[in-house]
Formats: sequence, structure tokens, C-alpha cells
Amino acid sequence: MKALIFFGHGARDTRWREPFDRLAVLWRAQHPNTRVELAFLELMEPSLEEAISLQVAIGATEVVVVPVFFGQGGHLRNDFPVLLSACQDQFPEIQLSATPAVGEDEAVLQAIIEFSARTL
Amino acid sequence: MKALIFFGHGARDTRWREPFDRLAVLWRAQHPNTRVELAFLELMEPSLEEAISLQVAIGATEVVVVPVFFGQGGHLRNDFPVLLSACQDQFPEIQLSATPAVGEDEAVLQAIIEFSARTL
Repeated sequence: MKALIFFGHGARDTRWREPFDRLAVLWRAQHPNTRVELAFLELMEPSLEEAISLQVAIGATEVVVVPVFFGQGGHLRNDFPVLLSACQDQFPEIQLSATPAVGEDEAVLQAIIEFSARTL
Repeated sequence: MKALIFFGHGARDTRWREPFDRLAVLWRAQHPNTRVELAFLELMEPSLEEAISLQVAIGATEVVVVPVFFGQGGHLRNDFPVLLSACQDQFPEIQLSATPAVGEDEAVLQAIIEFSARTL
């Protein structure tokens, strides 16, 4: 069973996570057969490890992590692969993979362009 | 004359700015009559003040700042209004405003949902 994790940076202000909560709500409404969890690199919970553990507990055999970041800087290029690899070691029974950052997707960038154009 | 600024957090890794550069390229291709500049809160240049100064130098009378952030945490709720207000004080001759963060926009979130669904 495939499952999804939206992975964000995390922040001290709890209201920072609101768009992530909305992503989970949107996903569940549109893809009810693919379980989704949120996970955060720092300052917020659950961690990636905890979110994978939740997915495994409900029967996931394949977990795809979507980094909800615009840019791919040190966090995604350096910290994230190490973290992902450590999680794979911890859950060898599942297939763990990651997509590029959402900011790499042309349609996401185009949605930002259209949002900006509507404000002018 | 209206002008736009895409405002991001900034990062140490210069490759982090690639999606921001692509946003500027997309905007210029689709809206050639509205000048756009990038600006960053920290770690990257130009600053918001410098970007506004560039826009004013080429004749902007109204500058709209689009925060390219997912969540609205301390940076956007606390630091950004102070920065925007300081910039308005420095350029009293222009009308300066800001949109909500792009992560507040339902169509941006929907584009992330569709990107994620394509990976499954």
C-alpha cells in the first residue's frame, strides 16, 4: 500500500503549519485511498521518522515523501538525503522514496504567477 | 506604473534561489509590461529595500510585494510588516503593498496536490 508524506521545514510559530494542514485536508478529500501524513525537519512534530512509523503502522509498504520547499538548498541537498537514508535503514521492510521539491514543479510556479497576476 | 517583487527567505546555498529565478523568467514572459524583481529577507541579495529602490529608479509608482513563503510564521507576521513599513517610510512617493503568502492560495496548494498525485 502506497502512502504519502508532505515534508516541511517547520517553524516556532504554530500558525506556520496552516498551509500544510490544508494540504493534508485537500489530499484526503481528493485521494482518500492514499493515506497522507505531515512531517517536519525541525521545530515541529512529527519528525519524518515518526510520520513514516505512523504510515507503517497502518500498513504502508511504500512511502513517498514530498518536500514542500521552494528552493533546494542545504536542508534538501545535504540534511534530507541523510535523514531519508537513516529512515530507510530503520524501516527496511518498506520502499521509501522522495520527489523533487515542489518548487521545482512548473505548474506550482505557474500557480504562483497567476496568484500574483490576480493581485495587480 | 505598477511593479512586482517576489520576496523569499533566502539561504546560504545559491542554488536555493533557482525557483525564484524561474518565477521571474515566467513573469517576464507572461507579463512583460509589469517589471518584476526578486528580494530576500536574509542571506541573499538584493534586500527588499534594494529591490524597491530598483523599481523606483525605473519609474514604479506602486510596488506590490508577493511573499513566496508557504507558512506565515514569525518572519511574515513579525519581521515582514516592520520591514515593509520601514521601506514605505524610505520611499514615501510610492504606494507599497503586500499580498498574503503564496501558501495561502488554494490554487497553489492544489498545484502541489496535483504534483504529488502525479508521482504516485
